Amino acid sequence: MSQRDKNKLSDRFGISILQQSNKLRGLERRNFLKKSLGMAGALTASGLSSKALADSQNTPPNVPTWTKSLGTGVLTNPYGQPSKYEAHVQRRTVDWLTADRIASISFTPLGDIKGIITPSGVVFERYHAGVPEIDPQQHQLMIHGMVERPIILTMNELMRFPSVSMVRFLECPANGGMEWRGAQMDKLQFTHGMLSCCEWTGVLLSTLLEEVGLEKGASWILAEGADGAHMSRSIPMEKALDDALIVFAQNGEALRPEQGYPVRLLNPGWEGNTSIKWLRRLEVGDKPWHHREETSKYTDLMPDGSAREFTFVQECNSVVTFPCPEKPLSTPGKYFVEGLAWSGRGRIRHVDISFDGGVSWREARFTSEVTPRALTRFGLEWDWDGSPALIQSRAVDDTGYVQPTLGQLKAVRGTNSIYHKNGIHTWKVSSSGAVSNVQIS
Amino acid sequence: MSQRDKNKLSDRFGISILQQSNKLRGLERRNFLKKSLGMAGALTASGLSSKALADSQNTPPNVPTWTKSLGTGVLTNPYGQPSKYEAHVQRRTVDWLTADRIASISFTPLGDIKGIITPSGVVFERYHAGVPEIDPQQHQLMIHGMVERPIILTMNELMRFPSVSMVRFLECPANGGMEWRGAQMDKLQFTHGMLSCCEWTGVLLSTLLEEVGLEKGASWILAEGADGAHMSRSIPMEKALDDALIVFAQNGEALRPEQGYPVRLLNPGWEGNTSIKWLRRLEVGDKPWHHREETSKYTDLMPDGSAREFTFVQECNSVVTFPCPEKPLSTPGKYFVEGLAWSGRGRIRHVDISFDGGVSWREARFTSEVTPRALTRFGLEWDWDGSPALIQSRAVDDTGYVQPTLGQLKAVRGTNSIYHKNGIHTWKVSSSGAVSNVQIS
Repeated sequence: MSQRDKNKLSDRFGISILQQSNKLRGLERRNFLKKSLGMAGALTASGLSSKALADSQNTPPNVPTWTKSLGTGVLTNPYGQPSKYEAHVQRRTVDWLTADRIASISFTPLGDIKGIITPSGVVFERYHAGVPEIDPQQHQLMIHGMVERPIILTMNELMRFPSVSMVRFLECPANGGMEWRGAQMDKLQFTHGMLSCCEWTGVLLSTLLEEVGLEKGASWILAEGADGAHMSRSIPMEKALDDALIVFAQNGEALRPEQGYPVRLLNPGWEGNTSIKWLRRLEVGDKPWHHREETSKYTDLMPDGSAREFTFVQECNSVVTFPCPEKPLSTPGKYFVEGLAWSGRGRIRHVDISFDGGVSWREARFTSEVTPRALTRFGLEWDWDGSPALIQSRAVDDTGYVQPTLGQLKAVRGTNSIYHKNGIHTWKVSSSGAVSNVQIS
Repeated sequence: MSQRDKNKLSDRFGISILQQSNKLRGLERRNFLKKSLGMAGALTASGLSSKALADSQNTPPNVPTWTKSLGTGVLTNPYGQPSKYEAHVQRRTVDWLTADRIASISFTPLGDIKGIITPSGVVFERYHAGVPEIDPQQHQLMIHGMVERPIILTMNELMRFPSVSMVRFLECPANGGMEWRGAQMDKLQFTHGMLSCCEWTGVLLSTLLEEVGLEKGASWILAEGADGAHMSRSIPMEKALDDALIVFAQNGEALRPEQGYPVRLLNPGWEGNTSIKWLRRLEVGDKPWHHREETSKYTDLMPDGSAREFTFVQECNSVVTFPCPEKPLSTPGKYFVEGLAWSGRGRIRHVDISFDGGVSWREARFTSEVTPRALTRFGLEWDWDGSPALIQSRAVDDTGYVQPTLGQLKAVRGTNSIYHKNGIHTWKVSSSGAVSNVQIS
């Protein structure tokens, strides 16, 4: 092994390597296997770093207890669970954010999850009267109003219609909203964790509307939940006839209770609270209803004091998920910087990453499927020299829309708002490798 | 509402409808809301079918307890669980299949799951010495043999490499194998349930091989597990350099213990047991090792008594998931017949469905993403007249390969085999709507 090769390897990812000794090279495969398995008792691998192993030249991998014994049998968990070593990957909340936990929020641990599918167990929660425990045999969905044939469907009836499945993100419009007025959340889980992406299965709302028949002039639909809050939102007919989905499954199984079991609305790419959970009623009308959750809440309070109603689309956005406050750097060297991008208008076309607070940019590559209105994962190799850095990501969607700076966003929207903050986000990396949340306009 | 409209609706999906009375039509929206919410106590919706509601003319949807009370707050489950009403959706096993549960199989409940992502909690299990409980801080992966720079990686080191995410199916080559010699499993869960599809995240094996450098002549890799069985398989270098993935996450979170936590190999599209779980060692060589699990097991015993070694690819296959024995039909009428298709060689191009045992065929449409080497969901409206039927599906992949009949398969492979049964499957629907498993050549 040449010095150049050694340099290449340790330079690329800062990883210690096992020096290949002549002794190891000369061993017969069978001898080596015999040694590594037969001499298990003589090994002291527990807790050894690869550096220590490298120092010991040709020690085989560690041989812990589980390698020499039987594990647990099938159906020990007929419905499986994560390893006990992953118990830290869970939803969390910010106690000062809401008055109680019945009408509150918990956040997805974005720093710990991979790929683009959010595990159902850690999809963020947001609701206004707690999670109802609904018996699907009793639940019904009524479609009425300006329709030719009003209908009440049981779950069994609903699930007989043709269904489709699609991977789509779901984001609360208040994601990051605490930071409009200057609060600095100390974790990625809290700056961006009202965000998820699942495979949703259900019946297209257009299929049901075709079934009931729209009356002339029908142009809006009120969706209403069966929970104690009766959360309701007015949905324009264009969306209802486009891709709105009456969802009964999420990531291959029935909706989780906190996600609307047994049935919810999903408006792909739109602010999450329009995707009414525990859906019990769809009323067709000719104008919006201006209910509480689309007037006093979920509107954008502009600098002049007026409120902008019906900002439905979650515009193009992105965030770096590694490094982040929960996942700092260690020593200088090569890292794979990663993040997530999404747009309520379509596919992500391009993502750039800056390491100097937006002065210069490098193009990232996609490391997942690129699906419309879904999270898209991107990454880029970065050779960190140990200096402080300001890491940002900037996404562009296939409409050509470029994610704005926070300064550009505030120039239009002011600082009164809570909703629809999609400005470029900045992580500051200190020389120690620690990562903190800073605002750069 | 005309009689023609009524007929159209009840004809299409056999669904009872709410007769639209003049009374309902004339009600103001506010009056109606007031009535439906304010008169909750007077309603007796519990257990009412929509038929009963239809008979009561203009009764609003039921108003059960959960609609009038607060539910549970956020973080009641920091890691969420399915509704208690979905407890029947779980892995199951067939007790006569293996001598004990330590080296055994549990099956995915294909009849209950939706879309193409298999929920991690019900992904089938298959292992040979039980599930080890591995501490990721102690686990190591060694890459050695015909490489220029052998290496031992900790999990932290492995996860610093560039990673990618891909949705791919994983199928045990013994899926359906009990039926080669005539056994008739009584559920879809047992005929096809050694099948799953997840989003997998990890480091391409080619990335690691570039890191260690291949010696001249390197052409095979032995992958070995850290469990008590030290399950091992020989993998050709072509696959290793193509899309083989060193996986640490599944459906967005760490691998589940029974799926190889903290790290496994995934050979997309290949027989599942080559995708070694709890991966601890990759040895590069110039020929296959012919270990136990690729000689006495996982080979195809041909009619002449010879054994065909290294049948890696899971060829194009499909199955109807609704109706199935667990999900029978009820009354005659319109149904949406659904199924899953997959091919280890690429994308699914086309699926046909037969209702008369293969005499005539109708083209199904895709109702999910169509991704290479992933499950693909298909569906087709079917107007069941109440007569007995023989339902089959037949998939074609983008290489042009057509899923064979069972007769075509047996003509080549005989009946000695256990593995790689991808013949067209038949469900018999009786006039009662019950569904059973039958063999048609």
